[in-house]
Amino acid sequence: MIEHAFDEAVLLEPAGDGVWQGRTSAAYGNMIGPFGGMTAAQALNAVLLHPKRLGDPIALTVNFAAALSEGRFTVTARPARTNRSTQHWVIEMQQGGETVLTATAFFGLRRDTWSADEHSMPEVPVPAAVPRTQGMDRVEWVKRYEMRFVEGSIPSEWNGQDQGTSRTRLWFRDNPPRPLDFASLTALSDVFFPRVWRRRPLLVPIGTVSMTIYFHADQALLKATGTGYLLGQTQAQAFRNGFFDQTAQLWNEAGELLVTTHQVVYYKE
Amino acid sequence: MIEHAFDEAVLLEPAGDGVWQGRTSAAYGNMIGPFGGMTAAQALNAVLLHPKRLGDPIALTVNFAAALSEGRFTVTARPARTNRSTQHWVIEMQQGGETVLTATAFFGLRRDTWSADEHSMPEVPVPAAVPRTQGMDRVEWVKRYEMRFVEGSIPSEWNGQDQGTSRTRLWFRDNPPRPLDFASLTALSDVFFPRVWRRRPLLVPIGTVSMTIYFHADQALLKATGTGYLLGQTQAQAFRNGFFDQTAQLWNEAGELLVTTHQVVYYKE
Repeated sequence: MIEHAFDEAVLLEPAGDGVWQGRTSAAYGNMIGPFGGMTAAQALNAVLLHPKRLGDPIALTVNFAAALSEGRFTVTARPARTNRSTQHWVIEMQQGGETVLTATAFFGLRRDTWSADEHSMPEVPVPAAVPRTQGMDRVEWVKRYEMRFVEGSIPSEWNGQDQGTSRTRLWFRDNPPRPLDFASLTALSDVFFPRVWRRRPLLVPIGTVSMTIYFHADQALLKATGTGYLLGQTQAQAFRNGFFDQTAQLWNEAGELLVTTHQVVYYKE
Repeated sequence: MIEHAFDEAVLLEPAGDGVWQGRTSAAYGNMIGPFGGMTAAQALNAVLLHPKRLGDPIALTVNFAAALSEGRFTVTARPARTNRSTQHWVIEMQQGGETVLTATAFFGLRRDTWSADEHSMPEVPVPAAVPRTQGMDRVEWVKRYEMRFVEGSIPSEWNGQDQGTSRTRLWFRDNPPRPLDFASLTALSDVFFPRVWRRRPLLVPIGTVSMTIYFHADQALLKATGTGYLLGQTQAQAFRNGFFDQTAQLWNEAGELLVTTHQVVYYKE
């Protein structure tokens, strides 16, 4: 059986106490450096693999300090504080002695409480009723995801006309399908193309500088979601002098909210 | 002239290379430990005061690892990566050799670009038309803010009935008024009472574990806002087994979006 490209890409090898070594993956290559979602998944993986880990991820913030060069990197994860049922992590990724990523993560043990999803999944056609997007092959990582745009797909005309909205909705999952776990859910949280291209179709240079993911899914919900599709909805709140934000929600086909995520992105022009 | 309580509270004294010493402020005291917004402002201040700082804050993530004890703390700020026009910081706050807070910050120099506010300020009555909330004196820090609730004020009846929404809108500012700066805007981003109390009025124990702030305001916009009111809007997206998220937007009276912010909060029951 051939391993999924994701498993190979996210792989880390122990290299000391709380230190791992990984390498960038050509399969998840981007315009410059690797797909940020994969880099974020590798950073989280350093905690997931750590022998002192307590519970599951609740929050992850990843700061992209520099574009990674092709090849090896080290990632260090340090449990800064361990409480009875929660744990705070500080993570750093380096290449050639230079910091390329900083991150913090919050892990915890969950307990059953009153619960409610307040942001409901919008009404959209089922995945099978939405055509699969073809021909997105400008960058390699995009081929690792199956995408079916319901609204706001990648512009076909880069005419620079203000669209009045930056909202996109799509069904998506790993390609080929792969059972969901926290690492893949991290990468899936970053599949949305930059909102500035959606709002004003111009191929301006962009780069995510910081991304935060809140995991509402636990192990049982990951398992229940399996290889099913996720509905992603994403929209910017402000574009202002070189930086914009984008927020997103990820639901499974049953309409359960798995992730809410936010990022701030550098842009030119 | 008497200094504003905020200035006294946020004050840090140099204690080595990239190390500062501060103390918790009784004026900003909370149920257990200090108001998280003040702690976040103190963490940011360690970077604002740092001689190697480049530009202004764009993103800040603060992780509350433990309730601070009354008294002194140290805060360390390290520039993990400095690029041509951007800078990534790693911050840690300690008391008695234990980590009580971890944080990361992204600073940058802005340049004029095409800009747009996509999340518009909702239509609400002007501040003068909304009564000032009186009698919120359960905790000290609340008295440091003037609040005028437009929608979703603190429950008067703690009946546990599901309200169907967790949305709150209010006009607010420092009390007494104080010209806005990045430190005070950080604290103002955390004034919203926990969404679980709004959605289901029960005084369950809560505690913010991680908060992220995206600053869309630059120095000029802070100056233009001055001592004016901010309109805050906040709402949860999911309450799930011990943790919920809440997002918020802060506009000035002119309707300019200054901040978008998100936090994940622990809750019981």
